[in-house]
Amino acid sequence: MWSQFKPIVTGDDYVESLRGRNLTVYLFGEQIKEPVDHPMIWPSINALKATYDLATDEPELASATSHLNGEKVNRFLHIPHSAQDLVMKNRMQRKLGQITGTCFQRCAGLDSISVMHSITYDIDQAHGTEYHPRFIRFLERLQKHNQIIAAGMTDPKGDRSKAPHEQADQDLFMRITDRNENGVFVSGAKAHMTGGLNSHWMMVLPTMRLSEHDKDFAIIGVVPLQAEGLTYIYGRQSCDTRAMEAGDVDKGNAQYAGQEVLAVFDNVFIPWEHIFMDGEYEFAAPMVERFTSYHRASYVCKTGLGDVMVGAAATIAEYNGLEKVSHIRDKLVEMTHLNETIYSSSIASAHESKPLPSGAWINDSMLANVCKHNVTRFPYEISRLAQDLAGGLMVTLPSQQDFESEETGALLDKYFKGREDIPTADRVKILRLIENMTLGRNAVGYLTESMHGAGSPQAQRIQILRGMNVDQKKWHAKKLAGIQQVD
Amino acid sequence: MWSQFKPIVTGDDYVESLRGRNLTVYLFGEQIKEPVDHPMIWPSINALKATYDLATDEPELASATSHLNGEKVNRFLHIPHSAQDLVMKNRMQRKLGQITGTCFQRCAGLDSISVMHSITYDIDQAHGTEYHPRFIRFLERLQKHNQIIAAGMTDPKGDRSKAPHEQADQDLFMRITDRNENGVFVSGAKAHMTGGLNSHWMMVLPTMRLSEHDKDFAIIGVVPLQAEGLTYIYGRQSCDTRAMEAGDVDKGNAQYAGQEVLAVFDNVFIPWEHIFMDGEYEFAAPMVERFTSYHRASYVCKTGLGDVMVGAAATIAEYNGLEKVSHIRDKLVEMTHLNETIYSSSIASAHESKPLPSGAWINDSMLANVCKHNVTRFPYEISRLAQDLAGGLMVTLPSQQDFESEETGALLDKYFKGREDIPTADRVKILRLIENMTLGRNAVGYLTESMHGAGSPQAQRIQILRGMNVDQKKWHAKKLAGIQQVD
Amino acid sequence: MWSQFKPIVTGDDYVESLRGRNLTVYLFGEQIKEPVDHPMIWPSINALKATYDLATDEPELASATSHLNGEKVNRFLHIPHSAQDLVMKNRMQRKLGQITGTCFQRCAGLDSISVMHSITYDIDQAHGTEYHPRFIRFLERLQKHNQIIAAGMTDPKGDRSKAPHEQADQDLFMRITDRNENGVFVSGAKAHMTGGLNSHWMMVLPTMRLSEHDKDFAIIGVVPLQAEGLTYIYGRQSCDTRAMEAGDVDKGNAQYAGQEVLAVFDNVFIPWEHIFMDGEYEFAAPMVERFTSYHRASYVCKTGLGDVMVGAAATIAEYNGLEKVSHIRDKLVEMTHLNETIYSSSIASAHESKPLPSGAWINDSMLANVCKHNVTRFPYEISRLAQDLAGGLMVTLPSQQDFESEETGALLDKYFKGREDIPTADRVKILRLIENMTLGRNAVGYLTESMHGAGSPQAQRIQILRGMNVDQKKWHAKKLAGIQQVD
Amino acid sequence: MWSQFKPIVTGDDYVESLRGRNLTVYLFGEQIKEPVDHPMIWPSINALKATYDLATDEPELASATSHLNGEKVNRFLHIPHSAQDLVMKNRMQRKLGQITGTCFQRCAGLDSISVMHSITYDIDQAHGTEYHPRFIRFLERLQKHNQIIAAGMTDPKGDRSKAPHEQADQDLFMRITDRNENGVFVSGAKAHMTGGLNSHWMMVLPTMRLSEHDKDFAIIGVVPLQAEGLTYIYGRQSCDTRAMEAGDVDKGNAQYAGQEVLAVFDNVFIPWEHIFMDGEYEFAAPMVERFTSYHRASYVCKTGLGDVMVGAAATIAEYNGLEKVSHIRDKLVEMTHLNETIYSSSIASAHESKPLPSGAWINDSMLANVCKHNVTRFPYEISRLAQDLAGGLMVTLPSQQDFESEETGALLDKYFKGREDIPTADRVKILRLIENMTLGRNAVGYLTESMHGAGSPQAQRIQILRGMNVDQKKWHAKKLAGIQQVD
Repeated sequence: MWSQFKPIVTGDDYVESLRGRNLTVYLFGEQIKEPVDHPMIWPSINALKATYDLATDEPELASATSHLNGEKVNRFLHIPHSAQDLVMKNRMQRKLGQITGTCFQRCAGLDSISVMHSITYDIDQAHGTEYHPRFIRFLERLQKHNQIIAAGMTDPKGDRSKAPHEQADQDLFMRITDRNENGVFVSGAKAHMTGGLNSHWMMVLPTMRLSEHDKDFAIIGVVPLQAEGLTYIYGRQSCDTRAMEAGDVDKGNAQYAGQEVLAVFDNVFIPWEHIFMDGEYEFAAPMVERFTSYHRASYVCKTGLGDVMVGAAATIAEYNGLEKVSHIRDKLVEMTHLNETIYSSSIASAHESKPLPSGAWINDSMLANVCKHNVTRFPYEISRLAQDLAGGLMVTLPSQQDFESEETGALLDKYFKGREDIPTADRVKILRLIENMTLGRNAVGYLTESMHGAGSPQAQRIQILRGMNVDQKKWHAKKLAGIQQVD
Repeated sequence: MWSQFKPIVTGDDYVESLRGRNLTVYLFGEQIKEPVDHPMIWPSINALKATYDLATDEPELASATSHLNGEKVNRFLHIPHSAQDLVMKNRMQRKLGQITGTCFQRCAGLDSISVMHSITYDIDQAHGTEYHPRFIRFLERLQKHNQIIAAGMTDPKGDRSKAPHEQADQDLFMRITDRNENGVFVSGAKAHMTGGLNSHWMMVLPTMRLSEHDKDFAIIGVVPLQAEGLTYIYGRQSCDTRAMEAGDVDKGNAQYAGQEVLAVFDNVFIPWEHIFMDGEYEFAAPMVERFTSYHRASYVCKTGLGDVMVGAAATIAEYNGLEKVSHIRDKLVEMTHLNETIYSSSIASAHESKPLPSGAWINDSMLANVCKHNVTRFPYEISRLAQDLAGGLMVTLPSQQDFESEETGALLDKYFKGREDIPTADRVKILRLIENMTLGRNAVGYLTESMHGAGSPQAQRIQILRGMNVDQKKWHAKKLAGIQQVD
Repeated sequence: MWSQFKPIVTGDDYVESLRGRNLTVYLFGEQIKEPVDHPMIWPSINALKATYDLATDEPELASATSHLNGEKVNRFLHIPHSAQDLVMKNRMQRKLGQITGTCFQRCAGLDSISVMHSITYDIDQAHGTEYHPRFIRFLERLQKHNQIIAAGMTDPKGDRSKAPHEQADQDLFMRITDRNENGVFVSGAKAHMTGGLNSHWMMVLPTMRLSEHDKDFAIIGVVPLQAEGLTYIYGRQSCDTRAMEAGDVDKGNAQYAGQEVLAVFDNVFIPWEHIFMDGEYEFAAPMVERFTSYHRASYVCKTGLGDVMVGAAATIAEYNGLEKVSHIRDKLVEMTHLNETIYSSSIASAHESKPLPSGAWINDSMLANVCKHNVTRFPYEISRLAQDLAGGLMVTLPSQQDFESEETGALLDKYFKGREDIPTADRVKILRLIENMTLGRNAVGYLTESMHGAGSPQAQRIQILRGMNVDQKKWHAKKLAGIQQVD
Repeated sequence: MWSQFKPIVTGDDYVESLRGRNLTVYLFGEQIKEPVDHPMIWPSINALKATYDLATDEPELASATSHLNGEKVNRFLHIPHSAQDLVMKNRMQRKLGQITGTCFQRCAGLDSISVMHSITYDIDQAHGTEYHPRFIRFLERLQKHNQIIAAGMTDPKGDRSKAPHEQADQDLFMRITDRNENGVFVSGAKAHMTGGLNSHWMMVLPTMRLSEHDKDFAIIGVVPLQAEGLTYIYGRQSCDTRAMEAGDVDKGNAQYAGQEVLAVFDNVFIPWEHIFMDGEYEFAAPMVERFTSYHRASYVCKTGLGDVMVGAAATIAEYNGLEKVSHIRDKLVEMTHLNETIYSSSIASAHESKPLPSGAWINDSMLANVCKHNVTRFPYEISRLAQDLAGGLMVTLPSQQDFESEETGALLDKYFKGREDIPTADRVKILRLIENMTLGRNAVGYLTESMHGAGSPQAQRIQILRGMNVDQKKWHAKKLAGIQQVD
């Protein structure tokens, strides 16, 4: 696998590296020959390409110095070794949100290697295993080849009231089906695989706390996407087929989009060198909890999308000649205030990070959860305000074809004219972008993924409850109230 | 025109009545031969059909006794002559929202004939004209033929800092271009014409306050949709082309949808018998204000859609086996609370209605504005909560074709199984409905139209400011504060 | 008791009627001789006086025609016999809120006689008892004497996980301790008795659902306030002692205030003629539920206080010369919008009321709960916005004595001057009113009582859950999603 | 002045240092001999004492190493010279909020010396003056004597539409009235002086941008509190006189309170050594803007009060036996989430601070404004939720005297009992604390001061508007929409 590709340098190298893998991919009931060439898939690849391009364009932001060998690596392959590393990661994520206006699909992979750095270390300490050095070897190669790793975490889960080993169908959580001297075989499926198809490797990890009886489900390993036994089924998104229409206007954001796939594993083999947990079930819970500390802060990316929303709303106000109207300015301020509130929780959780025994640093858990919890709310309000500023035209505009047709083009140009000096076409384009982000393809990433990615709202509330240190708060209250207490 | 069609009795009659009109309609850059047969247009027609079917199924709700002749007429053709009439109208609207889950496109027409009843009366009183009896004759025939009238209100407006007569292009507000002994000719365009194509008649009305210099723009009249000189251009909606895909599942709501068109008038003729204002510019402002009192309360329809949202959210919770979980129940309660809050403002504005000199009753303006203003907020929050309960699967589900394909169907069935006793297909269907209403085709009606229909939020705030009677409030405050004041 | 007083006609009569009753009242650890003359109690009496004065000043609003004998009675003694009765009641409540800026303490009494009309009727139907005619006789005399009845509902409850009969101390719910041929004796306490001391009669009612084992707690009866065995302990309120300071300014609202007392019953006797439930425990639950339908809509009074808040905020803006500033106007509009939203839920629940078998009409339960639930939220936001407009001066102003002192008066006048034409004293007075309603004595009524009166927020949520008809909503959702279901 | 006092070491030293100053202080129309001994003033002194005690108890948190001489100084006297300094300052502020439950009144002074470090430096650079070294000399002595400096910033302002030099009464902004070879004389007043009376020094600074015509108002200097010509008038607070009642319970928080005074200057002399701006009007605007960057982040203290609110709400839930009830836990989580959201904006603005030319570091302006703007909202919602959990008893409880009286004590104990094992008195105490913080004396600090301190909400919105970089946001939006633009 490693020898198959030469190290990736540019964004174009990356795109080329995805070709010819003969993945088994289904979309609209048919097998896709070459995903790279599919008009609906391409924008999602292009979003990942931006993570390479940014490393070239702004290396101080999007690359880092590997702690393994001191070489420059893409920041998405860099294990954070300081608060500043996590701060820079967050800034890079916001920037990529601004550049792509969508989910660029590379954060879960970064967060999974970050968490594996400390978890393999801790397992080794507890069990005398050799996972950590094995993981480091893998990481070195990954950095050297500059490849993308995706995280496969979410099992289908079936009946939610039952543990993995209690499920009628044991495949509803990924599990070891067989093992030999070279490695293990796994079956199951990983859902909601963000950017799954656009990666080179996939790490599979348990999705939740496991008990002794779930030992066969306590498997963490890495497989190449083209591993035998893997089938991918592509997820639909709102307005996805506009990507296959002629013309770019109605797409709203023609260049960039997200991607979600279901990956089905049918006895897929993982060699020992790619296995980082094998039965140590008690580390599933801390692994998940640390992953969420990293990943919930990663939702800072939505502030980049929020910047685009604010910019789009300000642009349509400008095009309508209303930018100085007080209630419009006030709404732009409100959008910005909410967006920066999200940013502050994320960046605070990075600054307040702490080192783990392995040397990797991890975001402050409370603030990361607070960040994500705000992300389940504020993008919806920002989106509502953007629709307010957009006006109803956003959802009554005719198609690009009508704007360009001989019969109707001139009529539309005449009647959808706003300010004299602004081409009608530009007004339409900015409205289509707002549609794209609030109802269309990238609303999936800006809204629904903001709700459920890295855990649904209730998951954050549980973490906040656990971390809120209510006893200390009660102590202070009782003290001030004059209630006697044993200190 | 009247003679052209026999009176409509059933919903099927209605659908038939739309055929063969040779309207000039453009969609995706091409002329549509027969809109009734177009798969993307048909669901919007079907939504209007529901207004006929309900009159048959629940006549006490969806029909009324005409004040003109005591005959039963569809409630959408009935001028409200009591508070109870307005209450019944609101209840019918909620019911139709529940039945269709979309905009059924008939309210603006009803509200335009309601307002014309009193406005024509008042113009006649002021000017000695004969608009009111003329309008009554038109209404009698409309009721007798049981046809649909749409409201064409929103002019393109061009440069918003200029009055109609000041626009560089005089067509940016509809205006009289010529007149002869039989009537007048008008040119211009009407945007955001909800259900425009699915109606038999269109009433054109000024969109805002007019001054003496705008006399040529002070025209109210009625034209049949097939009038010469009329061109229609169809508006796009999120996910609209799913209507043209095979299979019903991914449509979310395969039966019903809204419709928005741009209607362009090129010297369209209106005979005297269909003209209800001709130059009486000073009645434009009260006409618009009364229209909003009716129409902002009409947004009670969104509580019907809200009922569907609550029902869909409760259903997916049930399918996930989580219906009794406290945070889930709490979210269903919150959705219901918000939905009923909207309902209460609307129904209150109906109960608190007052008669006008013509005998028509009109909703309380403050409460109607409060209703609509809540509609610009709460559906967004209800929608956010529905997405919370839906889970991320809503935006990562593969296509119906994949579910039905030989290669992937069984895999999807296996891995997307929730509760044992619920078919995977049903889970998918209810998620697609939530997608449809929060991101897809009917999100246009449930969200963006809730924001901008009947006036954007700021328009309601201006009305609330005007009606809030701040002097009386200040009087009470000063009295209680012990400040001397001249009573 | 009846013979003791002559029928009350004017507000002054009412105040006189309270004198000389020798009630056992404690406040600040001391017994109060004559509550009417106590400066801290007097404003609460004056608030109730307003209910008499309004009946004189605006009889169509604050009086009604008794259904018993066709005579004019104070509306607070009138059993609603139509939707219009309930509508007029709500309008009167808003008006009294505007007039007093506080809780005028008479609603719970009205709502308790309203509910007893139907409950006594229903018990008689079920048990062949004679409670209804007995209640009617009492009501006739009450109306004739134009006296005030208070509702004593809230028992202390003790350990909330236990039923009344399971409590270690049986007095924690009011209960029958003894009975003889003339009546029964009760012991226990009623907490949060709004205006308890300012009434002539108190009705005691169970506070919640009772079971067969709680038969001794199933007592409803009426006692005069001066009944033997009754002790009253006065509740404190924020800033209550300002009422005892010299000068009116710092009081904020010197004329009106609320009142809460704890009434302790030590074997208080109730004669048969005043007993309306004696052991029919199964009617406790419907009694409570009906009471909340009436009483949660009664919280419309807070819109009257909201009007005062809006007026006070507009006045301070005027005094600061900022009334036309856009963000200030916008906040006044928001306050009004929220206030009218509350109003609409209440008035809608009145219009949508229904008759009960006894002939009494009752508010729509869902809308009444929605009203009250909004009352637990919006007054807090209105109050927050009022503090925004008030400015920080509201909480840094020196005392009235400093404003009037020779040493400091001129300095304060000089430095707290705002607009040239507005006396500094008036600025101070309006700020003290806002303090009074958002932090001070009447904040108790405007905020905390809005939260907990007529049931805490969770109580409304439970009612909304029960009434939301989720099955019908699910049916519509499934229908639209294309899910097969047995209709 | 310096020689008058020996350096302060302990909190007790501090209290002693305030005695015998013969300040001219008025309260309730009378002159106060010794404020330290006044029961209403003492708790505010005690709150400042906590800033000394904490420096002893947790020196790493509440002291710092002076950049002037490397000695340990109280952190409130330390000019931040790194991001970490600002972070530690924020942590100390939260801690002091937890300890005191009120405003500890020392932040504005710290923020004023912080801003003077860079402003004096910048003036010297621009004008060749010697303010910076002069300021450093003052600071050295202040640190050495460990004294408190208060900030006098807010001028009365009079007619807000006029500049200082345009006011009818020139004293409405502090101004130079005379000057001699030793210094200048100033007249005017400083309002809302938080902790003004409890400090040793007061720095006066302009309150807003000044123009060339306002040169006489461009004065920054330091005076001792006992300077000749100074008169103080004490501001009232909700429930302030409870401090003078017997017993501690009804006070809610008997130990700690805030303080606001009006300081009137009548030709007060400032010697040159204490003058840090004299006419350099163009530095007034940047001084104010930098001050707000520091001071708006200082509102992190409210998260300490928020911790107390959460703790108090959790305690009453515990005392009611309801701590595990899901809606109660959910409300505690919501309160915590909001509180930590505020914390994250503040701490982020500290971490993202930058150095100024003088070497002092300053908070990120956008995030500091976002922090303060959240502070104008979330404490109100936290307070609302605390009242929800408290129950209505909070505002109907009798006085401490009634609880302790022979006649009523036993009755109250019996009837206000909750959980068996919790003394009624403890239940009462925690409720009085919640009353104190949501309606009473410390609600002034937790709510109204959160609204207006460091600038009212609109002031933050203006700063957010200025800093939001809308052009960059528009650039990204246009880029993604495919709109051509000149980069």
